[in-house]
Amino acid sequence: MAFEKFQDFLSGLVKRQRGFFSGAEKDSIEKLVERLMGSEGEVSGIVTARQVLDRFQELDDEQKLLFFQNLEQNFNANPVMVRLAFEAYDKDPSSLNLGTLSKASEPLRHELLRRLNQTPGATHDLVGMRADLLGYLKTHPELLAVDNDFVRLFTSWFGRGFLELRTINWGTSAAVLERIIRYEAVHAIKDWDDLRSRIDPPNRRCFAFFHPALVDEPLIFVEVALTGEVPESIAAILEEQAGDFIGDEFRTAVFYSISNCQPGLRNISFGNFLIKQVVQELQVEFPSIKTFVTLSPVPGFGRWLLSEEEGTDAAPAGDTEEGKKHKEARQSAALLEAKRRLAALPVTEEMAKEHGDEIRSLVFHYLTAARKGKYPLDPVARFHLGNGASLYRIHAHADISKKGLSQARGAMVNYLYDLGSIEMNHEAFANEGRVKYSDKLKALAIKG
Amino acid sequence: MAFEKFQDFLSGLVKRQRGFFSGAEKDSIEKLVERLMGSEGEVSGIVTARQVLDRFQELDDEQKLLFFQNLEQNFNANPVMVRLAFEAYDKDPSSLNLGTLSKASEPLRHELLRRLNQTPGATHDLVGMRADLLGYLKTHPELLAVDNDFVRLFTSWFGRGFLELRTINWGTSAAVLERIIRYEAVHAIKDWDDLRSRIDPPNRRCFAFFHPALVDEPLIFVEVALTGEVPESIAAILEEQAGDFIGDEFRTAVFYSISNCQPGLRNISFGNFLIKQVVQELQVEFPSIKTFVTLSPVPGFGRWLLSEEEGTDAAPAGDTEEGKKHKEARQSAALLEAKRRLAALPVTEEMAKEHGDEIRSLVFHYLTAARKGKYPLDPVARFHLGNGASLYRIHAHADISKKGLSQARGAMVNYLYDLGSIEMNHEAFANEGRVKYSDKLKALAIKG
Amino acid sequence: MAFEKFQDFLSGLVKRQRGFFSGAEKDSIEKLVERLMGSEGEVSGIVTARQVLDRFQELDDEQKLLFFQNLEQNFNANPVMVRLAFEAYDKDPSSLNLGTLSKASEPLRHELLRRLNQTPGATHDLVGMRADLLGYLKTHPELLAVDNDFVRLFTSWFGRGFLELRTINWGTSAAVLERIIRYEAVHAIKDWDDLRSRIDPPNRRCFAFFHPALVDEPLIFVEVALTGEVPESIAAILEEQAGDFIGDEFRTAVFYSISNCQPGLRNISFGNFLIKQVVQELQVEFPSIKTFVTLSPVPGFGRWLLSEEEGTDAAPAGDTEEGKKHKEARQSAALLEAKRRLAALPVTEEMAKEHGDEIRSLVFHYLTAARKGKYPLDPVARFHLGNGASLYRIHAHADISKKGLSQARGAMVNYLYDLGSIEMNHEAFANEGRVKYSDKLKALAIKG
Amino acid sequence: MAFEKFQDFLSGLVKRQRGFFSGAEKDSIEKLVERLMGSEGEVSGIVTARQVLDRFQELDDEQKLLFFQNLEQNFNANPVMVRLAFEAYDKDPSSLNLGTLSKASEPLRHELLRRLNQTPGATHDLVGMRADLLGYLKTHPELLAVDNDFVRLFTSWFGRGFLELRTINWGTSAAVLERIIRYEAVHAIKDWDDLRSRIDPPNRRCFAFFHPALVDEPLIFVEVALTGEVPESIAAILEEQAGDFIGDEFRTAVFYSISNCQPGLRNISFGNFLIKQVVQELQVEFPSIKTFVTLSPVPGFGRWLLSEEEGTDAAPAGDTEEGKKHKEARQSAALLEAKRRLAALPVTEEMAKEHGDEIRSLVFHYLTAARKGKYPLDPVARFHLGNGASLYRIHAHADISKKGLSQARGAMVNYLYDLGSIEMNHEAFANEGRVKYSDKLKALAIKG
Repeated sequence: MAFEKFQDFLSGLVKRQRGFFSGAEKDSIEKLVERLMGSEGEVSGIVTARQVLDRFQELDDEQKLLFFQNLEQNFNANPVMVRLAFEAYDKDPSSLNLGTLSKASEPLRHELLRRLNQTPGATHDLVGMRADLLGYLKTHPELLAVDNDFVRLFTSWFGRGFLELRTINWGTSAAVLERIIRYEAVHAIKDWDDLRSRIDPPNRRCFAFFHPALVDEPLIFVEVALTGEVPESIAAILEEQAGDFIGDEFRTAVFYSISNCQPGLRNISFGNFLIKQVVQELQVEFPSIKTFVTLSPVPGFGRWLLSEEEGTDAAPAGDTEEGKKHKEARQSAALLEAKRRLAALPVTEEMAKEHGDEIRSLVFHYLTAARKGKYPLDPVARFHLGNGASLYRIHAHADISKKGLSQARGAMVNYLYDLGSIEMNHEAFANEGRVKYSDKLKALAIKG
Repeated sequence: MAFEKFQDFLSGLVKRQRGFFSGAEKDSIEKLVERLMGSEGEVSGIVTARQVLDRFQELDDEQKLLFFQNLEQNFNANPVMVRLAFEAYDKDPSSLNLGTLSKASEPLRHELLRRLNQTPGATHDLVGMRADLLGYLKTHPELLAVDNDFVRLFTSWFGRGFLELRTINWGTSAAVLERIIRYEAVHAIKDWDDLRSRIDPPNRRCFAFFHPALVDEPLIFVEVALTGEVPESIAAILEEQAGDFIGDEFRTAVFYSISNCQPGLRNISFGNFLIKQVVQELQVEFPSIKTFVTLSPVPGFGRWLLSEEEGTDAAPAGDTEEGKKHKEARQSAALLEAKRRLAALPVTEEMAKEHGDEIRSLVFHYLTAARKGKYPLDPVARFHLGNGASLYRIHAHADISKKGLSQARGAMVNYLYDLGSIEMNHEAFANEGRVKYSDKLKALAIKG
Repeated sequence: MAFEKFQDFLSGLVKRQRGFFSGAEKDSIEKLVERLMGSEGEVSGIVTARQVLDRFQELDDEQKLLFFQNLEQNFNANPVMVRLAFEAYDKDPSSLNLGTLSKASEPLRHELLRRLNQTPGATHDLVGMRADLLGYLKTHPELLAVDNDFVRLFTSWFGRGFLELRTINWGTSAAVLERIIRYEAVHAIKDWDDLRSRIDPPNRRCFAFFHPALVDEPLIFVEVALTGEVPESIAAILEEQAGDFIGDEFRTAVFYSISNCQPGLRNISFGNFLIKQVVQELQVEFPSIKTFVTLSPVPGFGRWLLSEEEGTDAAPAGDTEEGKKHKEARQSAALLEAKRRLAALPVTEEMAKEHGDEIRSLVFHYLTAARKGKYPLDPVARFHLGNGASLYRIHAHADISKKGLSQARGAMVNYLYDLGSIEMNHEAFANEGRVKYSDKLKALAIKG
Repeated sequence: MAFEKFQDFLSGLVKRQRGFFSGAEKDSIEKLVERLMGSEGEVSGIVTARQVLDRFQELDDEQKLLFFQNLEQNFNANPVMVRLAFEAYDKDPSSLNLGTLSKASEPLRHELLRRLNQTPGATHDLVGMRADLLGYLKTHPELLAVDNDFVRLFTSWFGRGFLELRTINWGTSAAVLERIIRYEAVHAIKDWDDLRSRIDPPNRRCFAFFHPALVDEPLIFVEVALTGEVPESIAAILEEQAGDFIGDEFRTAVFYSISNCQPGLRNISFGNFLIKQVVQELQVEFPSIKTFVTLSPVPGFGRWLLSEEEGTDAAPAGDTEEGKKHKEARQSAALLEAKRRLAALPVTEEMAKEHGDEIRSLVFHYLTAARKGKYPLDPVARFHLGNGASLYRIHAHADISKKGLSQARGAMVNYLYDLGSIEMNHEAFANEGRVKYSDKLKALAIKG
């Protein structure tokens, strides 16, 4: 009954103010969680939830691990109830019996997370809690069960329908901008002047997704440069003086940096939505822009170059056209020779300048043929091609920062978001792993 | 992999605009749902979701029933997968195996609802869809399984942490105010002037909960009158001229109307939070207010009066003090006689005036002793006592509208929200069904 | 010195709260004004200003007149100072001497109004004060001097640069919408449903100017219907069902009602800005709209029809082309005959229907030839033609309300706002009184 | 007539977009101003105003001077009209005749400024224009007449009733915060981190006045520290770690920096309002704060110390009590000796530390007895005492920055804003120049 399940909002707050729980304040987090879930837990749930979340933040690493292990071990289900529910379902697999089984086998962690989420600010704290949890997964794989529960709930809470797209500019609050500086993961923002040069000029735009329960906290953001031509290097964007293209008509929008902000929302993907919605926003504002491209790093190229692998760790299925091409590539002595040659060269700007053609050829091969399962090895390629983008241009000597040289010998690529073909590209990629690329790139193929 | 699970936002929208789906537009809702869920369903999910929701609204009653029956029959789980997951769990009830079972036994309806909720405006449409569903439950009880899935998801989406309290006043948009007029369920609002008299004067307040995904749609609202004394009739509030108490110091806040706005959110309870948070808001704004009471109807009194039941359909457990009192009440010949006498009288304002004492005595008995299970029979009493309020005053001749006379012979009651004792009241009520009432009411007890 | 001229904000407020001025509260408004202006008046100016404004509102008509007469007689200038300043200027007409004279001859009322305007909400009260003042001007023409001072200050305060254009729709606050209902002066809004039908449908728009110091108070607003064709009657707009044109492409925007909201701002003109800015807003939102017209009454036609005047009370200057045409019109026996015939007919809907051609001919003559000075006699014509609009269409049987028949025998007209020619039209009108009209209307000329 | 005086908003903009004025663009600013004011100037006023303002910003110093000289010489009044108006007034000094004279003698510059202010963004540009003008006043004193006209209009436009108080915090837009950094005039803000430490911690507050027509442009702002005790040095505030007093109850609010932001609004005073309104805001938010003080520099002390003056440049009038005391002070040999001694010492931190008592005595004397006319010599003292504050504490070794040592030998003072006595203090100060100081300070008097 509804009236039996409520949480006492104010009474709890009042007690808390009065130090009613002052004794209880010293309770362990386990005790607090127990109180939150206990049969009498209905009372003062909101204040107890707040206490649990506050207490969690005071724990040291050891204690946090214990907390998660407690969740893993003691917040599962009642095996007897599960068995009874399954037997009823097994006898009569009705939808009602399925519902009963589904409820019986729902880990108690779900209810705990929902109860915690009743208190103001809880969503923010729970996202932080999962960020902590992720740190333990490698060494304590059994905690994956706990993480799975976070993922299931977050997927529900952070559904596309609940997100809000906002423009980030010089009129945005410092509280948000400060986080943009902090969260930028691709091309670091040095200071507030650098930030301003990315969001304030007429030829720069920045967009972010927000969730109503995470005030001032962007989930993901993308930085865009509006240009005439497709730029050939990141320096052309980051160092370009604002205003160079002003007065000019913009013809190209370049997504040059996409950063996830919340480690605790890993694998709760927003990036695909973000880019496509931003494309639409920009089309409305600038009808003259016809080309939407990224300027993306090729983070896995360097490692692949130095690896002994032939080029892919698995062939696409069957003897499709695509499959045949890959096989050839794999067998190509010319490719292996080209890899070895480039791998032997010093990782310097000069090399990047002089050997542009070789680098572009190998990057082309790497992005189109090097595979993990049926999909490209490169994570950025997987992301954009999976979104339905196609490979558009490959630039050598495009990012000569230390990181750029080490990761990709200075190469960067454009992925093209063409709304007319994005649907088909996605399907061909998702089903067959096919990589769409522009005709111009064909000349880069390595002949055996 | 994340890139395999995305929804094509723009590409879908673009196609839709171009009439790409113009042929598909004629697909049945079943086909559309299939496409949304199908293995290739990852593509253009957002636009398909929108199509499903639009199509649903065009269906007639018959077709909607078929749609829900389709959900009930064909969106359950794979029994083989469920059995395999259960057997693994039965052998080793690890948290990971439980997670696998939980996922395997999750009705496919959950995923359907989540996918539908990706498109803008979907939450609003899904709440409407459930409102439709509720209409079929009586005649098609098997659809309860579908409703349970709605409830589980809505409970997650509409958690307390996602709600926003807003003040409703004359500065609120007409789009919201129009809904306040429409949704008022207790004391109908006649027109915009009547509305203004409830939200604009300095001695009136109105608060509502909103959810970010339901723009301009209040979930629940409460109307409050700020007064000197506790009022003894609803007319004193609804007809009182604004300003009567202005200049005076407010000492009492009266919650005289609480209305749920969304039939599709039935049983997703917000009322308990709302009242308590409003108490807190008012305490901050008006430190002089010390008494927070409702002015509530007694909707079940009339029916109980005419019933043959002795007074309760079940005794509280054991021989507690409370239990003994109830037993006495039940056995009381005096009570039965009093019920019969009042039941025989005409249901008129004059009667309500003349027999005030008898009415108050019987209402007191009804609220404190008449039970359904261990809790009071009266639904409004259950709600407020369950929140931790106590029974404070009983007024005869307080609501002489036709409805008021028929439901409660003109009686109304105050429930008191005293933050200092709300916690204890709730616990005593939740655990033992104990009804806390003020000392003054004791004199109303019927002596046998 | 600046530090000598300040107003004690808080100290005054505090005293006021403490009833420090409780004795002084009984001072007459003259005393209060004296205190505000007096040499010690620098102290607590803000609170005294508030007292003056509050006291004024309590005055009865007689007392208000006395207040204004006091302003007229005792808040002028020091004649000795004026003489000295003039003599200095007369001897040496330097800019500094002019400044001194300008200050010396500035009526003390200016300083009084500025001091009054320092207190929160003062602008609103001063606009109301002038509205009261206007009521006395006819019987007390000497108060015109006071009114001139209000006009000079309001012209400065309500300059175009300080106004804000806002869209009025169903998302606007009830506090503003209530005023739209109240202030609509052309086609009365019956109730909130009627209001909604004018601002909520996709083919309706409403825009208003606001001033930051007049919260929730529109200064002027215009109602717009978006249509396919230019409508031929007001009923087609007011009774048309919303949605009739929806889906259709809008080609025409019709300004069918413009209302000034603040009687106290009479002659502080905003209407010309409003229409032109709205034209621009609509062009951006609806590129398909090419025609911007009013649907306007002809308020002076009825009176002119019944008058003995030949057709104009003054000829345009000189023997311009325009002048000659007017002269002919004036001398035309045919015109006089046509006037007499129509004037003799009953003022009924049937007549309006049957005699459409005669009515349209005479309205055309009235609007193009009947003059007051060099400008048209009709005030609405003066307004729109002065803005640079041209006369576009004349409709008979277009407003068959009692008012419409009496004022204009049911006729209404469209004035066209064509941004390409508005500048030239205005200049020709302002300089020579020339009325631009569309070629189609030529056929309506009365031949003598 | 109103319809003759309008400005063509859109038509002008449209022409401008079409390059209609492309020839005219090369017109000199004099031509543009002439067009704006000319008899046909009514047309396209808004666009011409924008052109004048844009053109002005392109002028070099020489050209700007010419522009202002043009304003000074050619935008005065018609001497014939002035004479006629004066003669009429002289014969009959009626309020109407005064009005006519006032209008006739109003410098044409007023109308020019009002016309310029019709275009969007004009107020901002005009404030900037006056800032430029101020730079020429010293060398071209005749331009004072132009400045007087700016002051008269700005006083009207920036009246207290049009200003808006806003809180500045970490949620404020970067566009505003950037200006706070730039405009801070007392204790420079080094960078964004320094800014954050002044506006974000719970024991810091910042408030600013804004005008609706100057978007994102603060007019004046004050920085406040909330503390337990009255701080004895500026370092205690600027270097104190946020949080030191958190948890503690605030008892004191310290206004440690007030900065005017707009040079173009010099002498349009807002500071007195600001402090008092902020006192009120803080009293509501923190009832525990009972003491409101500044922590102020003593900028004129160093110069006075080195001057030959006896102590004041003028005695207060008459033989008032105050007057006698000053006279004594003036004649005091002890004072002169003390001044000479301190003036001879090196201006170092060590000196400031060792000679604290002498410094405090002399600062006390300087603030209470050194006069310019009847008011204190020190400008900061004049400002706060003129506001009704009193001298509360004098701290030696309180600002040991180079500037602090040079200006005031390291001394700072607290002025107390006590709402109960602010009114009386102000009056005693304004009328008699009396400086109110706390009893504790009496001990600092120099005995002769």
